[in-house]
Amino acid sequence: MNIAVLPGDGIGPEIIKQALRVLDVLHKEGLEMTFTEAPLGGQAYDQFGHPYPEFTQKVCREADAVLLGAVGGPQYDTLDRPLRPERGLLAIRKDLGLFANLRPAVLFPELANASTLKPEVVAGLDIMIVRELTGDVYFGQPRGMRTNEQGVREGFNTMIYSEPEVRRIAHVAFQIAMKRQKKLCSVDKANVLETTEFWKEIVIDVAKEYPEVELSHMYVDNAAMQLIRNPKQFDVMVTGNIFGDILSDEASMLTGSIGMLASASLNESKKGLYEPSHGSAPDIAGKNLANPIATILSAAMMLRYSFDNEAAATRIENAVKKVLAAGYRTGDIYEEGTKRVSCSEMGDQIVAAM
Amino acid sequence: MNIAVLPGDGIGPEIIKQALRVLDVLHKEGLEMTFTEAPLGGQAYDQFGHPYPEFTQKVCREADAVLLGAVGGPQYDTLDRPLRPERGLLAIRKDLGLFANLRPAVLFPELANASTLKPEVVAGLDIMIVRELTGDVYFGQPRGMRTNEQGVREGFNTMIYSEPEVRRIAHVAFQIAMKRQKKLCSVDKANVLETTEFWKEIVIDVAKEYPEVELSHMYVDNAAMQLIRNPKQFDVMVTGNIFGDILSDEASMLTGSIGMLASASLNESKKGLYEPSHGSAPDIAGKNLANPIATILSAAMMLRYSFDNEAAATRIENAVKKVLAAGYRTGDIYEEGTKRVSCSEMGDQIVAAM
Ligand SMILES: CC(C)[C@H](C(=O)O)[C@@H](O)C(=O)O
Ligand SMILES: CC(C)[C@H](C(=O)O)[C@@H](O)C(=O)O
Repeated sequence: MNIAVLPGDGIGPEIIKQALRVLDVLHKEGLEMTFTEAPLGGQAYDQFGHPYPEFTQKVCREADAVLLGAVGGPQYDTLDRPLRPERGLLAIRKDLGLFANLRPAVLFPELANASTLKPEVVAGLDIMIVRELTGDVYFGQPRGMRTNEQGVREGFNTMIYSEPEVRRIAHVAFQIAMKRQKKLCSVDKANVLETTEFWKEIVIDVAKEYPEVELSHMYVDNAAMQLIRNPKQFDVMVTGNIFGDILSDEASMLTGSIGMLASASLNESKKGLYEPSHGSAPDIAGKNLANPIATILSAAMMLRYSFDNEAAATRIENAVKKVLAAGYRTGDIYEEGTKRVSCSEMGDQIVAAM
Repeated sequence: MNIAVLPGDGIGPEIIKQALRVLDVLHKEGLEMTFTEAPLGGQAYDQFGHPYPEFTQKVCREADAVLLGAVGGPQYDTLDRPLRPERGLLAIRKDLGLFANLRPAVLFPELANASTLKPEVVAGLDIMIVRELTGDVYFGQPRGMRTNEQGVREGFNTMIYSEPEVRRIAHVAFQIAMKRQKKLCSVDKANVLETTEFWKEIVIDVAKEYPEVELSHMYVDNAAMQLIRNPKQFDVMVTGNIFGDILSDEASMLTGSIGMLASASLNESKKGLYEPSHGSAPDIAGKNLANPIATILSAAMMLRYSFDNEAAATRIENAVKKVLAAGYRTGDIYEEGTKRVSCSEMGDQIVAAM
């Protein structure tokens, strides 16, 4: 198992370090893994003048999986857009064909208080959002800014989905639903946008191959409401790139502890990029204050989805649960009566619990 | 003052009836108003075979303001898309040039419990979302479904904003901010979409004319999170049509009582369409159970924005507050210890409180 490790910017390096320590426990026990480090985002711009340089492309293309910290920081905000850290993220997704973004929004019982929603509304929350990641208005052509024939300046993008793009993400979503509560909600704006009317048609067609899954459809505006009104009605949600960007962030904030949430972005052959759902938190970078759990759980997802090692994945997840149950908390999830620890101490505890 | 009244579908007619009773109080006291009824949505399809028929176009074009109930119902879900009720809504917006959609998300102190968010997070919530309503991917050309040169089927739309479109909505938003807490947050996805990068540039330019307003920018995914994490950080938000559709629904659900929320859609000469933020609720239609308050508050917005009659608007709003304080509640906002009333009884109470 060949793993590309991209620490990235901000708190990226420190959280990645803890995830590697946890993986190292398995490595020492005999699980074969090789790690190759490469830069992405601002870190890559500093070294190579590009947020996804050739060196990193090569390392990632040759790897079986990619483990990423986070990218971005205020010092890069004045760069030309094509050179900014997040463009590195978009480029690696497209380059590796990572079309299926899995973003779980799970409430850890110990952290129920962290949510701004009432406990009875979010207790037991466990939603899996499947977001298409390499299509839609993110990548559609034509795009840009121009002066039109009337001499008026305008900005424009193209929202677009092809049948194979929708089919493959629908299959991923149905397959995930089969392993969960067998409920899938496809989110669209089919009453207004042909792109998503088309999306809906294809999803309905793919559904025929999964008769056990209960498929529903919801408009994106209603989905944004329902996530707040009654989030536990959802099991798996599937949607396009831009709606998925918005809804997955909304859903993760329902838990109140985004420092706990992992994500996976998969291609057609199980290769995946694994990263925490949170950002690079430049304000606390380098201070050993960050919460490494989302990254550690991302490593668990890597073992599950790219290496089919359910046992190792579960073992990491159980170690995290044990440490939470024992009362250890980084600053972002700290509350009175619990034990406040640093990023590396949280790593210590999880390694010990393994 | 010439008012076009469009009862629409579902609970539309019954909630409009109560709003008209409230306006009639002012009429009897001498406020000049004439009302012309016309159908929209499913009701219009039934009568004229089109959701925005010529008759309604004529009535609305000649009116100074339009008061709408709601459109839509399951019996129209199998119609060809261009004939469905919501297309009537899109058509009237475009036809009348109603580019500025104002959607307040206000928590009434008496209804604080209705929110799924913790009271301390939403107490005192008062956000105004300014949504551009006649541009963006909703109306952009080209759009449709096609088989491309590779023989692959695809659905596509065009996200697009021109400089004048962004300028005029930005002015509306800054002017509203000037009358409130002077804080404006412009929501975009400028890190990915040129359309919204362009949007952001123009907003920054318009800001020069409003030096007193504190302007901030937020990515749409972060905005969807921040609305849940700490909604009270917002005063006025301005964004495009599709992001506004999603965020305004999300924001209104924070209050837990969407039956209370009004909206206005204005053109360049103060003509406006006023409607409740909620839908046509076919399940309770005709049962005298609906909450007429959002429609009554929409009538108040009409007096304020289209007829510059702040006194009359405030009088209606105060009557609503009084009735809430006295404990009257329709079913959607009922809780133990309050007095449950029907739609028409709620109308009675508000008329009496006027
Ligand atoms: C940084 C940005 C380009 C990215 C996206 O919009 O996809 C981020 O918001 C995410 O969700 O991973
Ligand atoms: C019914 C639909 C076309 C409409 C929209 O998307 O604009 C509705 O959701 C709204 O927000 O008024």
